[in-house]
Amino acid sequence: MMQVPLTVGPMLEHAEKFFSKKQVISQTHDKLHRLTYADIGERTRRLMSVLDGLGIQKGDRVGTLAWNHHRHLEIYFAAPGMGAVLHTINIRLSPEHIIYIINHAEDKILFIDEDVLPLIEAVQDKLQTVEAFVVMTDKSELPESTLKPLYSYEELLHTGDPTHEFSKTIDENDPAGMCYTSATTGKPKGVVYSHRGIVLHSYALGLADSAAVSESDVSMAVVPQFHVNAWGTPFACTWFGSTQVMPGPRFTPKRLAEFIEKFNVTITAGVPTIWLGLLRELEQGNYDTSSLRAVLCGGSAAPKGLIQAFEQKYKIPFIHAYGATETTPLVTLSRLKSYQEKELGEEDKLDQRAKQGALIPGLDMKIMGNNGEVAWDGEQMGELLLRGPWIADEYYKDERSENAFVDGWFHTGDVVTVDEEGTLKIVDRTKDLIKSGGEWISSVDLENALMAHDAVFEASVIAIPDAEWQERPIACVVLHEGFADKVGKDDMLEFIRPQFAKFWLPDDVLFFDEIPKTSVGKFLKRQLREQVKEHYNMQK
Amino acid sequence: MMQVPLTVGPMLEHAEKFFSKKQVISQTHDKLHRLTYADIGERTRRLMSVLDGLGIQKGDRVGTLAWNHHRHLEIYFAAPGMGAVLHTINIRLSPEHIIYIINHAEDKILFIDEDVLPLIEAVQDKLQTVEAFVVMTDKSELPESTLKPLYSYEELLHTGDPTHEFSKTIDENDPAGMCYTSATTGKPKGVVYSHRGIVLHSYALGLADSAAVSESDVSMAVVPQFHVNAWGTPFACTWFGSTQVMPGPRFTPKRLAEFIEKFNVTITAGVPTIWLGLLRELEQGNYDTSSLRAVLCGGSAAPKGLIQAFEQKYKIPFIHAYGATETTPLVTLSRLKSYQEKELGEEDKLDQRAKQGALIPGLDMKIMGNNGEVAWDGEQMGELLLRGPWIADEYYKDERSENAFVDGWFHTGDVVTVDEEGTLKIVDRTKDLIKSGGEWISSVDLENALMAHDAVFEASVIAIPDAEWQERPIACVVLHEGFADKVGKDDMLEFIRPQFAKFWLPDDVLFFDEIPKTSVGKFLKRQLREQVKEHYNMQK
Repeated sequence: MMQVPLTVGPMLEHAEKFFSKKQVISQTHDKLHRLTYADIGERTRRLMSVLDGLGIQKGDRVGTLAWNHHRHLEIYFAAPGMGAVLHTINIRLSPEHIIYIINHAEDKILFIDEDVLPLIEAVQDKLQTVEAFVVMTDKSELPESTLKPLYSYEELLHTGDPTHEFSKTIDENDPAGMCYTSATTGKPKGVVYSHRGIVLHSYALGLADSAAVSESDVSMAVVPQFHVNAWGTPFACTWFGSTQVMPGPRFTPKRLAEFIEKFNVTITAGVPTIWLGLLRELEQGNYDTSSLRAVLCGGSAAPKGLIQAFEQKYKIPFIHAYGATETTPLVTLSRLKSYQEKELGEEDKLDQRAKQGALIPGLDMKIMGNNGEVAWDGEQMGELLLRGPWIADEYYKDERSENAFVDGWFHTGDVVTVDEEGTLKIVDRTKDLIKSGGEWISSVDLENALMAHDAVFEASVIAIPDAEWQERPIACVVLHEGFADKVGKDDMLEFIRPQFAKFWLPDDVLFFDEIPKTSVGKFLKRQLREQVKEHYNMQK
Repeated sequence: MMQVPLTVGPMLEHAEKFFSKKQVISQTHDKLHRLTYADIGERTRRLMSVLDGLGIQKGDRVGTLAWNHHRHLEIYFAAPGMGAVLHTINIRLSPEHIIYIINHAEDKILFIDEDVLPLIEAVQDKLQTVEAFVVMTDKSELPESTLKPLYSYEELLHTGDPTHEFSKTIDENDPAGMCYTSATTGKPKGVVYSHRGIVLHSYALGLADSAAVSESDVSMAVVPQFHVNAWGTPFACTWFGSTQVMPGPRFTPKRLAEFIEKFNVTITAGVPTIWLGLLRELEQGNYDTSSLRAVLCGGSAAPKGLIQAFEQKYKIPFIHAYGATETTPLVTLSRLKSYQEKELGEEDKLDQRAKQGALIPGLDMKIMGNNGEVAWDGEQMGELLLRGPWIADEYYKDERSENAFVDGWFHTGDVVTVDEEGTLKIVDRTKDLIKSGGEWISSVDLENALMAHDAVFEASVIAIPDAEWQERPIACVVLHEGFADKVGKDDMLEFIRPQFAKFWLPDDVLFFDEIPKTSVGKFLKRQLREQVKEHYNMQK
């Protein structure tokens, strides 16, 4: 067979040739843009020639600090397309982490959204490798800024060559992209994505039994483009010719609901927090969401009640998925098998679909308990180990690699069970698992049970040290508005009691106004533990 | 990213783990078998250990002369799974070609279906490399045979190790399979399939906009397993957990119709001749075919009338595809784009779907006319050139490689047009194209037009030498039963006249009882030309 490398550039070339009329609908600060893939292709070619002119060479890192919009999409293809590396930076991180990331990755140029400029202006003196800044704005004039040299994206494009070719000298194992995990402790860790990994991951997203990304889709990635390449959807949707809707900066649930109705969105992807927000919006407004064939949900476990609300109340198929920054990210996706569709009752179906699902073809997994691999019985817990062509094999220039990547397997730090069908269920993070009297208690199971209560908006369960049992669970609950005086600790415990062994029940239930979260919407349990400690200290 | 090779063995391992209960339903000479993927996995492991015991080493060729059934499927995974090469041999070829192929590939062992034994017994003295023969039979005793040493498949399996591991030392570019093209002239040409090519091709078959192979499918490959790996469906269907129905030896259209009804077949694949036969069966019988979501048709161009009959009369979606032995084989697949679904009228939709379709993501193509690349205007004809990771880069140890594989492109020998949408239409074989007075005439277009006539069962158009015009077209027609005395040459010409320029119209229409075909059901135009020559000589 021909030795043709799997690279990112030809994915956009395919869209230029076969889907030239299809559109990218992009919301920026000032307006809504509509571009065809022919436009995107031409602009990407201009951008490659511009990067070339600015001295960007093969392997150089091109940083972005931007929301989801068409210019960001163009950089997605231009940087790897010319052999450079797309480095998406999470704009929600602390200035300290942003400085660390840019210096550690040695970004040579930064593409920055207008509203992110102040953030970079404030830290510019600490950036050691950046030689140029490009602001992505609709306005014809450059904004006032202390950044130098500062270029206008559109002006640069104006000078670019619309026929510039994608590089033909890229090896499929060359780096195409990079993203730092928003770690809850310590410095962020960098993951490098190869061309090969991105192409194979895109095939995986197109599989009928996976996300089934299709030309007929109108795809709206709500997950930020600065977070694991928006789960790879911009690459797959471009390659397969989907219409893409990009909700732009600082979107609200209202805008999401409006866009779904207006553009007949068929598939959308995001974290549970986003869908909780959308659900509240749908309950208030009167939106037509009938075009949606799939809401993909990942990043952290979705409560069963959320799935139920989408599916039963709004007839929107809700698909649970699992992945991580280190896994490009798609690892599992929850779909019923054909015989489960026929044989299971509604409640069992929901239970099954609330799990994270089966492994995507192309990957391999092992579940390691205290004494080696555990049985696939849906009961035994173990840490999930992964292997495959879109799984990272190291953190970029980071000593912490040796703990996470051992003997050819990525140790995810996620504790799971797997049932006889091969369906994976996230039980906990290894570090969040509660070890009580030699037994393991899953904080995630307790959280899901609590969140099924009508009064509960969010619930997070943490471990506190215990003299007798080593650790004991404490539940932290945020109530829906209007329930503050109506339910208490005992209601919560009574509600979940039938589902658990006695020793699993939390020792206490505390009520908070909100639960601290990471920049990507995951519970920040470290901080929550501090709050709980403080709460008990104040009581003393 | 991890350096995990794309190899065939893990595809079956995936089915063992995630689809262990799903079934392979297999018709052999004597009976119908039902095996699960757990069974297939165990038997394949036994077979690998047996091959190992028989001295088969990495890279050795394992020949098969067999129909579509579960034992053949097991060899599909066992041979490449242990690092050997699956060499499927077309049992319909002449003894002379079969001898050539086995010696040229240097097959070390042959797996033979019971009814094919006499064919091999007759040529055994000419086989230079074969060290062992295995007969695949349901019977407990070996049949009488002059082949030595001759083993029973099931007895060998009985002695095998059910826990034998798939080889871990395979490079993804190592050969996994091989198949010889049933050339219409000269010796057959061998194509070697790499592990990487087969895995990527399987992803392609699973894409939502391609064949969308799914766990929920019941797939019946009618295309023989000795012809381009049954178009790769056994690999993809196993990987993605589809139920597989294997129609076994010497099936009839009746058996196909019965299996579709009995096993709720959702997808099936084969050449136009098969579907013409099935159509006649459906017209006679009273079958429930409502489970079918797709009939894939390739190998040669399907007449529009055939597509129409399946879709309009039987509500069976008919999907036109294009490929070749050299292309693993999937290259294009015909689906309407979402906006074509909305915008085109029924007739235009049918015209579009009767084309071969758009290129599968991952491949690249060029259309070369007399003066370089031709425009994508649906008018200009040129030879189709292909490039991609599942396109062959040579014929196995064959000097003819240099004519077909030039500067990194496979020259298909197929003449095509491509429209603005990127939809490819096969116009002819370069060698069947009729060159009349400096213009090109497509024999395929004329054939399709003739086949739309109610009285016509099959039509083939060939070129005969012409003193004035260089070449002129002659139509050869097979009529449906009962039409012999009712239609003649003028009816045919009047019927197609409105669709073509005057010089395209055939100079003559000859009526035959049948049209000679290759062993894979394609018109054998070389032989037809001889028959036509003979016809005119007899008239003199």
